[in-house]
Amino acid sequence: MDIPALQQCQRWRLDISYDGTAFSGWAAQPNRRTVQAELEAWIRQVLRLESPPTLVCAGRTDAGVHARGQVAHLDLPHQVVTDDGSGLVRRLGRVLPPDVVVRSVTRAPDHFDARFAAIWRRYCYRLMDGGTGVDPLMRYHVARVKETVDLAAMNAGGDTLLGLRDFGAFCRRREGATTVRTLLELSGRRVASGPLAGTIEISVRADAFCHSMVRSLVGALVAVGSGRRSLEWLRGITEAAARHPTVEVMPAHGLTLEEVRYPPDVGLQDRVVQARSVRVAHG
Amino acid sequence: MDIPALQQCQRWRLDISYDGTAFSGWAAQPNRRTVQAELEAWIRQVLRLESPPTLVCAGRTDAGVHARGQVAHLDLPHQVVTDDGSGLVRRLGRVLPPDVVVRSVTRAPDHFDARFAAIWRRYCYRLMDGGTGVDPLMRYHVARVKETVDLAAMNAGGDTLLGLRDFGAFCRRREGATTVRTLLELSGRRVASGPLAGTIEISVRADAFCHSMVRSLVGALVAVGSGRRSLEWLRGITEAAARHPTVEVMPAHGLTLEEVRYPPDVGLQDRVVQARSVRVAHG
Repeated sequence: MDIPALQQCQRWRLDISYDGTAFSGWAAQPNRRTVQAELEAWIRQVLRLESPPTLVCAGRTDAGVHARGQVAHLDLPHQVVTDDGSGLVRRLGRVLPPDVVVRSVTRAPDHFDARFAAIWRRYCYRLMDGGTGVDPLMRYHVARVKETVDLAAMNAGGDTLLGLRDFGAFCRRREGATTVRTLLELSGRRVASGPLAGTIEISVRADAFCHSMVRSLVGALVAVGSGRRSLEWLRGITEAAARHPTVEVMPAHGLTLEEVRYPPDVGLQDRVVQARSVRVAHG
Repeated sequence: MDIPALQQCQRWRLDISYDGTAFSGWAAQPNRRTVQAELEAWIRQVLRLESPPTLVCAGRTDAGVHARGQVAHLDLPHQVVTDDGSGLVRRLGRVLPPDVVVRSVTRAPDHFDARFAAIWRRYCYRLMDGGTGVDPLMRYHVARVKETVDLAAMNAGGDTLLGLRDFGAFCRRREGATTVRTLLELSGRRVASGPLAGTIEISVRADAFCHSMVRSLVGALVAVGSGRRSLEWLRGITEAAARHPTVEVMPAHGLTLEEVRYPPDVGLQDRVVQARSVRVAHG
């Protein structure tokens, strides 16, 4: 059904960074400042389009969540952009507010889809634990936890959650949507040097995420790492696979979407068919 | 003359971080929000002092300049703080605004003086060069330079400035004050990975700095690194040692005071005598 559009249009890939502090998340909503609406309005203006284009992103971040590796796609009639996309990057750089940057615009390969072609998304949750306050220069994207976190205990918890399972205990359930996901990485490390020295960075990587899943996973790990909860508690709620009231959702501002990975160009079409069948048909 | 005060008082060392964005610098000024006045007012309040105490710092940062390693001292009557200082850290943590953090308060050794006992101060200037915009999450403490900077050319320039010399070309001269300093380090590197990947960090270390000296040195190096100026130009203005109109002062927000080094406790007294003689008697 979208074949005619594909024939008339060029699909573009956009790589985007933003500070989520002053945005009500990615997805456009009436009367809210959102990353999607901000970008669509400025792209319309600099390209002199009759109506705003539609951006499709890899990870629909919540209000207050940041991105350093967001990817989106956009279909434009062939005559609108005739260079390699760098002109649009420059023009957007002159008009966009300082909390959102389009780092690159490139011609997307055949079958590219920012949402459905992604193999995995990687988020990083940053927190400072114990008595020390958060570095004032990093306070917009590092959360504070008053207890001291034992990284070994936390990572033992993370290990038990890896693999294909129902993450219903960690998601806000949506009617008819699956909460089965493949968790590929869930581990924390303490930054040794540089301006973030002492900060705990928890890397969370999965094929895809449900709503509030990263912040709930981190909340559960922090509970285990600080000794408030046991590994048995974590295993128990995970097996129950129903939204669990004792799982704390961590604050949005500690979370950043860092990277989205796509297959080599020849694998794009298969990946899109596979992801659509899992998440759209079943969801 | 300050011997009676020393006998009645305990000197405390404070380690302080701040986001300089919303401060008119360190030094207290009438009707301005400054780090010194903010801290003195809150210390007075939590310790219930009759009048604000006086903080003496290692580096009087300008408006908009940040600190991650500021050190200050404070003299308090013995009965005011009776623990190891950690109680004051906790109490300040509850009341201070989020843009300033007192990381530690410790009893200062004999002869400690945050200003005069320091051996060196290290600043870091962070900038993103070329077409890419600054990472929105780092925009408060990373400056932007539109040209691409050649690090090798820049560092060749830095090498020629090391050692003991008159930095008058890079300073706002104050009546009667010396501009002779010992520059110990002036070199840039590009951050390879992590959230600051791609950023140029220029490390600037000296026994002490004159007013606007770091930002002028970095401005001169960027001019050389971008090819706008030659090494010969840099050598020429340095030898002239008079404030040079072609030296650009870089924006304040890229600059952070990272570290202040003191001698071992037994060397404090000698260092204070030496630094006072150089900078007070001659200045």
